Amino acid sequence: MTTPDELARASAEAMWSGDAASKALGMRLVSVGPGTASLSMTVREDMINGWDLCHGGLIASLADSAFAFACNSHGTVTVASGFDVTLLESARLGDELLAVAVERARRGRSGLYDVTVTRSSDDTVIAEFRGRSRSTGDPIPG
Amino acid sequence: MTTPDELARASAEAMWSGDAASKALGMRLVSVGPGTASLSMTVREDMINGWDLCHGGLIASLADSAFAFACNSHGTVTVASGFDVTLLESARLGDELLAVAVERARRGRSGLYDVTVTRSSDDTVIAEFRGRSRSTGDPIPG
Amino acid sequence: MTTPDELARASAEAMWSGDAASKALGMRLVSVGPGTASLSMTVREDMINGWDLCHGGLIASLADSAFAFACNSHGTVTVASGFDVTLLESARLGDELLAVAVERARRGRSGLYDVTVTRSSDDTVIAEFRGRSRSTGDPIPG
Amino acid sequence: MTTPDELARASAEAMWSGDAASKALGMRLVSVGPGTASLSMTVREDMINGWDLCHGGLIASLADSAFAFACNSHGTVTVASGFDVTLLESARLGDELLAVAVERARRGRSGLYDVTVTRSSDDTVIAEFRGRSRSTGDPIPG
Repeated sequence: MTTPDELARASAEAMWSGDAASKALGMRLVSVGPGTASLSMTVREDMINGWDLCHGGLIASLADSAFAFACNSHGTVTVASGFDVTLLESARLGDELLAVAVERARRGRSGLYDVTVTRSSDDTVIAEFRGRSRSTGDPIPG
Repeated sequence: MTTPDELARASAEAMWSGDAASKALGMRLVSVGPGTASLSMTVREDMINGWDLCHGGLIASLADSAFAFACNSHGTVTVASGFDVTLLESARLGDELLAVAVERARRGRSGLYDVTVTRSSDDTVIAEFRGRSRSTGDPIPG
Repeated sequence: MTTPDELARASAEAMWSGDAASKALGMRLVSVGPGTASLSMTVREDMINGWDLCHGGLIASLADSAFAFACNSHGTVTVASGFDVTLLESARLGDELLAVAVERARRGRSGLYDVTVTRSSDDTVIAEFRGRSRSTGDPIPG
Repeated sequence: MTTPDELARASAEAMWSGDAASKALGMRLVSVGPGTASLSMTVREDMINGWDLCHGGLIASLADSAFAFACNSHGTVTVASGFDVTLLESARLGDELLAVAVERARRGRSGLYDVTVTRSSDDTVIAEFRGRSRSTGDPIPG
């Protein structure tokens, strides 16, 4: 019998293998479990905007990836229907960012996930993200 | 004397020159004006997620860039404090996406901008984005 | 045959008759059409918060009611799954507020509606609200 | 010397005395502390909408009040600049709702607060609310 932890890991492996976007952004899958996932990303030169700061959309992309792994951890194909992000601090070239996603609620096919993005060097919270998911009902192909 | 249109263009040029992130994602600055900006981006192979769809965070990144150019168009350095995005349709490899940002409100140093992301081939709305900005009060260096 | 306008009016009548909350807050249904609705409310003494301003939740309630009439205007029972509101200006005792809801998108059973709340005396925008709806699929009882 | 707890209680007393709106909705101030507040409200007949459910705007109003007491607990007049709410479950006539607000972040004059609204009888989460605050910098009059 598959445990919830095994299911989360199998789902993450299936997703990660095809996730060219997260890989191209240099993200690393740190951990995954039932309703949760952690990913990290280091701010590169090609992530800097016109004000010498990390592009806010890319901080949101890191959080969105953590959200995706968390909401798919139950073994059912689940997509984002939207999210809200509050940008609390700027991130800069070389900063390592860690996004930790946790499940707040699931009701029928809808889910709500909170993702906190911190700077690893000093644990400063960079962004708070809240994602809304919708399950398709289809099992994740193994 | 500088017109609002000239100011918007000068601000966009100053931002664009340093915006490595938007360039690395292949974005093109289509137009800019007082309180508005349009950018396009074509979905590449390195933007695809584990479900063979464009990563939602990158759709948000395109909208976030359009928002940034719109909220900086008045000549004052302005940063995003957050945004909400609703993902209405998936985007796929090869889709050309167009993000059009318009100003909804400015009050003191705060601003609110709506960005609609459409697929250029058929004008389908892919995402609706609402950005919250905060001006620093500093003029954009020329 | 029922026109979309007739359907919107019939749906609004069915909802309004049971909407004790909107009536208790003194709301008036100004107009309704396919995907749109306008409601007004005057700020009363029992709507004032500790800073002598209209309680933000009640401004959101007015917008939420306009959103509800708009998203139910197609004749199918539809409920709010959430909303985001930006409070741009304070409202004060005696202010008449007008909320105008318009449909931004509908996809399957999901919908997105924008509501702008203005002060009637000078058309100042008080709040911008964005509502997310979910249809049950059941027809509104006549 | 005033402790943070005493400051939170003094701020809450000053706000509550003038908060006609929260009182008119039958809210009760359960507790308050530095960065946190709990309020309860029972769903009355005049809070029911056209679908025999508690009006979503009034659930948001309860959360908004808890948010207001939490973000003013540090002794500085602070107002809401906006909020997002996800409505997870319906509330019905007679339900007692409890809103618990906690501080997620404060940066300069900006703050972020999460409010969870539960039904007291069975601890079901009814709504998740996230509020954005802005301090005026003025001390709360004693």
